[in-house]
Amino acid sequence: MGDPTQAVWGIDIGGTRTKYGLVDRSGSVLTADVIETQPREPAETLFNRLFERFEAYLADRPADVRVQGVGIGAPNANFHTGYIENPPNLRWGTVNVADLVRSHIDAPLAITNDANATALGEMRFGIAGDLRHFIQVTLGTGVGGGFVVNGDILHGHDGFAGELGHVTVVRNGRLCGCGKRGCLEAYASATGLVRTVLEMLADTLADSPLRDVAPRDLTAKTIFEAAENGDDIAAEAFSRTGRTLGEALADAVALFSPEAVVLFGGLTAAGNRIILPAREHMEKNLFPAFKGKVKLLTTGLDQGRAAILGSAALIWNELEKHTP
Amino acid sequence: MGDPTQAVWGIDIGGTRTKYGLVDRSGSVLTADVIETQPREPAETLFNRLFERFEAYLADRPADVRVQGVGIGAPNANFHTGYIENPPNLRWGTVNVADLVRSHIDAPLAITNDANATALGEMRFGIAGDLRHFIQVTLGTGVGGGFVVNGDILHGHDGFAGELGHVTVVRNGRLCGCGKRGCLEAYASATGLVRTVLEMLADTLADSPLRDVAPRDLTAKTIFEAAENGDDIAAEAFSRTGRTLGEALADAVALFSPEAVVLFGGLTAAGNRIILPAREHMEKNLFPAFKGKVKLLTTGLDQGRAAILGSAALIWNELEKHTP
Repeated sequence: MGDPTQAVWGIDIGGTRTKYGLVDRSGSVLTADVIETQPREPAETLFNRLFERFEAYLADRPADVRVQGVGIGAPNANFHTGYIENPPNLRWGTVNVADLVRSHIDAPLAITNDANATALGEMRFGIAGDLRHFIQVTLGTGVGGGFVVNGDILHGHDGFAGELGHVTVVRNGRLCGCGKRGCLEAYASATGLVRTVLEMLADTLADSPLRDVAPRDLTAKTIFEAAENGDDIAAEAFSRTGRTLGEALADAVALFSPEAVVLFGGLTAAGNRIILPAREHMEKNLFPAFKGKVKLLTTGLDQGRAAILGSAALIWNELEKHTP
Repeated sequence: MGDPTQAVWGIDIGGTRTKYGLVDRSGSVLTADVIETQPREPAETLFNRLFERFEAYLADRPADVRVQGVGIGAPNANFHTGYIENPPNLRWGTVNVADLVRSHIDAPLAITNDANATALGEMRFGIAGDLRHFIQVTLGTGVGGGFVVNGDILHGHDGFAGELGHVTVVRNGRLCGCGKRGCLEAYASATGLVRTVLEMLADTLADSPLRDVAPRDLTAKTIFEAAENGDDIAAEAFSRTGRTLGEALADAVALFSPEAVVLFGGLTAAGNRIILPAREHMEKNLFPAFKGKVKLLTTGLDQGRAAILGSAALIWNELEKHTP
């Protein structure tokens, strides 16, 4: 029998599902699963269900694994305070996660929002291992940003830095879920893509198979398939989405001077339909000093496991910071 | 006779004038002066003229002062490389400042752009002493940004981070000196204010004393005086300038989560005519998590000496970093 494997719990709390895994220092996943978040239940219930599973797993192999810490990625999770503050899609109000976890396990804990966790995962286990300055952009239902400065996540004074999804791209534009108008998230996310299609269906008379799909059923996948089958509206909606993204990225580059921007999340499955216009319009709008210098890449993480790997990277990083 | 005073040369190179001063650790200025930059002359000539003066000053008091280092703020100065790269308004091309300085003095050197230097000055000698995360915005002929993250200037991968003046505020808007269109600098600077007045004079039929001033002679000062004398066009031009600034700041806050934004530079002389609309529209456009939390302040530095103090702060910081 060898030494026990050192590993951490990586947890990603989403509005509908919570993913977790036990991850060693090299990114190997010893076990992983998904449970329903049950967003109407109190947070305590979710943590009770998670730790029941953790304890059951470990009880079967007491000598094999030593849990070193817990990393959590969640919407509105505050790295500085250990609180999750009024997460959208969860009826939790503000939750002291540090306390909840401490009632189950005596181990170091770190939390941050899901976009930041993904950036850390990209750095530790993906394609950003050599990058000291980069921007991780998650293009999913919403748009998330994780800004890495000097090899570490930028949390800012309040712990909420990196809200790339909520920079304004169209003054008085579309209403965003955050209550503002014209946010990048209302344009360059999967839901933004759907809204762009609806706008184009309203604005033009062009025929399109997307006129046969109820708006509620329209997804990025439906639109992608229509584009692949030659539908011009669908193809143009991707172009516009990529363009808006690229324009917003050019501004973020002007402020941060990153070496690269890494795209992550569901929309990246559209590949060049989103990447090419994003790259073209980022480049076109760059401040001259940055032209030709900033790479636009797609994630090197297995997107199915990225959320767990990101949360695990978060706590591994913290553990290493405190080890001389 | 006491020990010699430890001091640094703080130099601020502008398109027309170069300011310098000898500054001790507490911000006392032992001597300071201004010379013409002579932008058509090679950089070497400027440095020869500067160091002639430095040496003359020190020759008179050899036992009183010990020069510890040299800090330089200049447009397009790259902290990482020690180069000034194609500065606008100077016919220098790219200049190895480190080499030029080393031919005159054997002392540590640090360079950065003028906006970053000002942020460092604000932190060391102004009102930002307690701030670990803030944004310094210089509103002069152009718009400069100095972003302080965890108590240090964000230089980014390329050394050119913080180009707040070149984020896009109006898609396909006014031509900017950088070659792009719609940059913040084309709206929220002294020259942007003048352009806003011209636009309003074109757009309306309202009478205004500003119709008697040749565009080339219009300055922020003329416009401020007109506003103070009750001219509506002038007053509204300030409001629009502040509004555009505030809107852009809200986006910068979403990315950086600063504790405060500090305004600096000539346009701040307009006081509430610029501050109030900037504050109102920053607040109105903030991502909800930041509402009511981010202060908009004006500089605590003597604006006449700020450039020198900023460059001095730069090199004092570097000296202290390398002292255990």
